[in-house]
Amino acid sequence: MCDEDRLKLKAQINQQSDIVRKLKAAKGSKDKVTKISIPNAISVKDLTMLDNLLANISYIGGYEPSYADKAMYDVLRGVGWPSSMSHLTRWYQHIKSFSPVELEAFPTGVPTCNNLPPQVVGLLSTNNHGIDIGCKITEEVSHLLNLKAQLGTVEDGSGPHKLILKTPKGTRDYGPSQMAIRADVFNKIISVFKRHGAETIDTPIFELKEVLTGKYGEDSKLIYDLADQGGEILSLRYDLTVPFARYLAMNKISNIKRYHMAKVYRRDNPAMMRGRYREFYQCDFDIAGQYDPMIPDVECVRVVSEILTSLQLGDFLIKVNHRQLLDGLFEACGVPPDKFRTICSSVDKLDKSPWEEVHNEMVNEKGLSPAVADCIGKYVRLSGKTELVEQLLQDEMLVGQCKSARDGLEALRLFLKYCTLYGLQDQVSFDLSLARGLDYYTGVIYEAVLLSDTKTEHGESSGVGSIAGGGRYDNLVGMFDPKHKNVPCVGVSIGVERVFSVLEARLASNKTKVRTTEVEVFVASAQKNLLEDRMKLCKELWDSNIKAEHSYKRNPKLLAQLQYCEEMGIPLAAILGESELARGIVKLRHVVTRHEIEVQRENVAQAVRDLLTKASGNS
Amino acid sequence: MCDEDRLKLKAQINQQSDIVRKLKAAKGSKDKVTKISIPNAISVKDLTMLDNLLANISYIGGYEPSYADKAMYDVLRGVGWPSSMSHLTRWYQHIKSFSPVELEAFPTGVPTCNNLPPQVVGLLSTNNHGIDIGCKITEEVSHLLNLKAQLGTVEDGSGPHKLILKTPKGTRDYGPSQMAIRADVFNKIISVFKRHGAETIDTPIFELKEVLTGKYGEDSKLIYDLADQGGEILSLRYDLTVPFARYLAMNKISNIKRYHMAKVYRRDNPAMMRGRYREFYQCDFDIAGQYDPMIPDVECVRVVSEILTSLQLGDFLIKVNHRQLLDGLFEACGVPPDKFRTICSSVDKLDKSPWEEVHNEMVNEKGLSPAVADCIGKYVRLSGKTELVEQLLQDEMLVGQCKSARDGLEALRLFLKYCTLYGLQDQVSFDLSLARGLDYYTGVIYEAVLLSDTKTEHGESSGVGSIAGGGRYDNLVGMFDPKHKNVPCVGVSIGVERVFSVLEARLASNKTKVRTTEVEVFVASAQKNLLEDRMKLCKELWDSNIKAEHSYKRNPKLLAQLQYCEEMGIPLAAILGESELARGIVKLRHVVTRHEIEVQRENVAQAVRDLLTKASGNS
Repeated sequence: MCDEDRLKLKAQINQQSDIVRKLKAAKGSKDKVTKISIPNAISVKDLTMLDNLLANISYIGGYEPSYADKAMYDVLRGVGWPSSMSHLTRWYQHIKSFSPVELEAFPTGVPTCNNLPPQVVGLLSTNNHGIDIGCKITEEVSHLLNLKAQLGTVEDGSGPHKLILKTPKGTRDYGPSQMAIRADVFNKIISVFKRHGAETIDTPIFELKEVLTGKYGEDSKLIYDLADQGGEILSLRYDLTVPFARYLAMNKISNIKRYHMAKVYRRDNPAMMRGRYREFYQCDFDIAGQYDPMIPDVECVRVVSEILTSLQLGDFLIKVNHRQLLDGLFEACGVPPDKFRTICSSVDKLDKSPWEEVHNEMVNEKGLSPAVADCIGKYVRLSGKTELVEQLLQDEMLVGQCKSARDGLEALRLFLKYCTLYGLQDQVSFDLSLARGLDYYTGVIYEAVLLSDTKTEHGESSGVGSIAGGGRYDNLVGMFDPKHKNVPCVGVSIGVERVFSVLEARLASNKTKVRTTEVEVFVASAQKNLLEDRMKLCKELWDSNIKAEHSYKRNPKLLAQLQYCEEMGIPLAAILGESELARGIVKLRHVVTRHEIEVQRENVAQAVRDLLTKASGNS
Repeated sequence: MCDEDRLKLKAQINQQSDIVRKLKAAKGSKDKVTKISIPNAISVKDLTMLDNLLANISYIGGYEPSYADKAMYDVLRGVGWPSSMSHLTRWYQHIKSFSPVELEAFPTGVPTCNNLPPQVVGLLSTNNHGIDIGCKITEEVSHLLNLKAQLGTVEDGSGPHKLILKTPKGTRDYGPSQMAIRADVFNKIISVFKRHGAETIDTPIFELKEVLTGKYGEDSKLIYDLADQGGEILSLRYDLTVPFARYLAMNKISNIKRYHMAKVYRRDNPAMMRGRYREFYQCDFDIAGQYDPMIPDVECVRVVSEILTSLQLGDFLIKVNHRQLLDGLFEACGVPPDKFRTICSSVDKLDKSPWEEVHNEMVNEKGLSPAVADCIGKYVRLSGKTELVEQLLQDEMLVGQCKSARDGLEALRLFLKYCTLYGLQDQVSFDLSLARGLDYYTGVIYEAVLLSDTKTEHGESSGVGSIAGGGRYDNLVGMFDPKHKNVPCVGVSIGVERVFSVLEARLASNKTKVRTTEVEVFVASAQKNLLEDRMKLCKELWDSNIKAEHSYKRNPKLLAQLQYCEEMGIPLAAILGESELARGIVKLRHVVTRHEIEVQRENVAQAVRDLLTKASGNS
């Protein structure tokens, strides 16, 4: 940058400072919103600049909507541009989709404005018709800061562009301690699946869009699509069940017992404080095959019970019901068949809403007569064990003319009998209010709930909610088979994200530190110039399959090394010292007790192994 | 379908059969390409039908391009439609992007035509100007088949639409045995990482597009973008290194030793026969932090060596070089600095191409003078151990005026010394031809190659190629930090997909069957009506943490149960029989030897445990 340019820039800065001062004064004198009117002048160059900018970022100010978007939207209203400026068009349509109230709620903060390229700030400050003085100040301050940054950065040679560092909306990184908790949960769950002889499969993270089409009803709008870059139309998987059904049909597999733990994607409004993300894990166990009634169905419940017990989440209850019974009940009460599914979703709300509200919805929103709703209400508030099944089987009104209700009840009778054989009688409850949202269930349905309340990481109550759920879906695979050949399936999904929330909350409230490595011994040096000795000892330990670390510094301080061992929960330290090495020995230190023993240099690996075995025997 | 409609359809079929017959006759009489000219008539209804069709599938014929696309493209040339028909526009632009030669190469087969909706076939057969008779026959045959299918499917009540079942291009499902191999490889690799005290992290599968922008040079075109559905602009991750650098900068982490095993995405031309997919695993180990020279660098090599040894892939060699040495060498030979990177990628080809070809490329394509290329050639064909480093340090031409070359060589001297301390002297070779493609390396670079050739699953030679690679990249994190603060990093990536190919090929050639479950005992019944006894015994076994299964059939045949045990490699079968149960005993059968012992019913779990312990002690 030549001196002349610098002087010019400094003059611009002075001028800009004046504008900011004057605006601040104006704001001080009258605090109400004032419009500043400036003539409209948008060149093709400006539009091209905006299109290029928006090729890489979602909003004018970066990755979040801001006041700058609203301001620029106002500038561009009524302005046309060629359709080849697709990024600008995308952005314009997106901003246009917000309501005026939403637009007003865009943040006005300086941090966002700070990130605006100077040309954008220039365009806004010379063109905007509708900026109140407060925001005008923000913009002009940002303009000033940008000019200063330009002067500074041109001088130090780095670019003025700041990258906003974040993960996409609704997603997060998992750090080492979160991963350690997850690995522990996964291992516990997988060991239950393996105890039941399950295999595992994996499918691609994306599917042909048509595979997902028509499977999720209204929720289809939450599916993430991939961009059309030529070739196939793809979407990220929304759950693991539909890819599983596609896998069975495509590979003509007629029986398998499989588990699948993997991430799925939903463009939902994230509620991250409550542990709801757009990218999250699902953990499914399903048994596919033509088998005798209720035998695989009850094993799924046994698997849920073993998992919840193994994870030590506290008391739980597994509610069960049957889709055929629900349909029969609706039929017996006089619900028109085309309303079965919608009334089913009303019933499904009974775990969160009182009967009166659900009754209202049925009558006022879904058009049932009050008598029909009352009839449903008489039944769906019932829950119990086998004796309730027997009682309902005697209920002439319910089972007299309705095969479906009788079939459902008889299936449940068998199911509950098998539950007892599997030792589940105390954990399972027949609950007529359980309905489950998904359309594809055809038989038994279940849902496990935790009975004890737990606080989340953020101190909110995690509520007493569903932790696992599933059921029988005999017709899904047939939707993929060219000859509509069905493979009956029953399965369950463990709400692992909820499990993580509960465990993280518990660890946080206990202030328990999670170990993120499994290092057994740290090789430390007491003096300088022992790097090579440390490296030799590490080699021996690794050769002996002992988990060992040493400092990557040439001459680390002994205190720093020992502190590291304490922080990381490493049980042992092997301390190398000049005089000890001269005597052919090494000190082994128990990090917690600080107790030290001396061992022969050539026996360190064996001595470490012995100490670790002894310690694990004691614990 | 009423009789009248059926008769009409049958008449249509007869007529269509005539067309096919005549066309076949025409083809027989003159075998050269003949144009059939039919008047153009495209209605808005037709266009709407096409737009709807293309909303869900990528090509007219389904998920792969076919002759039908070319034919329809010819039909639609010069026809306009409203921009709201975005799917049709997408498809048209995509087909337009193919060269005439590529269009001609589209498959003409009947299978694709078979899947065409009848309206499309109708549109093609009444409108197409440029179909030769051969293809015309194909189309008309498909029309005929469609009419027949219509008659058939309307009769059996199912829809005429066939769903093509496939995974997206370049992806695949992993079945249980593939997953078992992967789990075994992952466990072996992870146990090495853990032996070195590494933590693990995970990042979202997609990133803000800008995070990936400008990191991969020309390969950026291979990045998968997500569709713009309002909100942020996202892309699937292309590797694990850039998300790692973003993670460090975002969380202001200045040191970590982490591994990350996860899938990455590249829109490359898949070569699935050679194990190259668009969705594949990467497995990275990196050490970030400001440490003393070469200490973390050499540990990465030690990790690679332990992993390759543990996976028993045969002999391997780890080549090392240094970016500073390469730059110094280029400088000393007189390469202009702006050509360093491009000459670097020429050198990188030396593992596959002879020196003469690389020399040619440098001179003829990249404009080096032959003398400069010769000078490079003199060096890059050298490889050796420490003595080569010492020899080059005496080479006045190389190190006389060039600090960079001397620094690189001295770094390598230290590196090789540390390698010896870690017992790696025989596995590591200093190789001046190693260059590595990625721009971001700043120091030592390495690459492990398998020395023994292995056939892939499909009988192709897997070649003697790279199985791991990495190096130091000190400036990548700074690209994300607002203040450009760098975190020096060094790391290595294990080519796990190649490992899987090699292992799968080996298993296939040994005809080894992989166990996909870990079931220890199968609970069988010798007669009918023992389901409840099987269930009770399973419960006891599961309660005792024994992996157990039984048949989901009420009354399975004993032979079928025992065959299942043999197929699945289950070591033990507990056989329940009426007379045995009456005597209070159960037979335990060793599946392979068919040896049976009798144990008390109440002691089955303990007896199974004892037999398994004994068996594992023997093996």
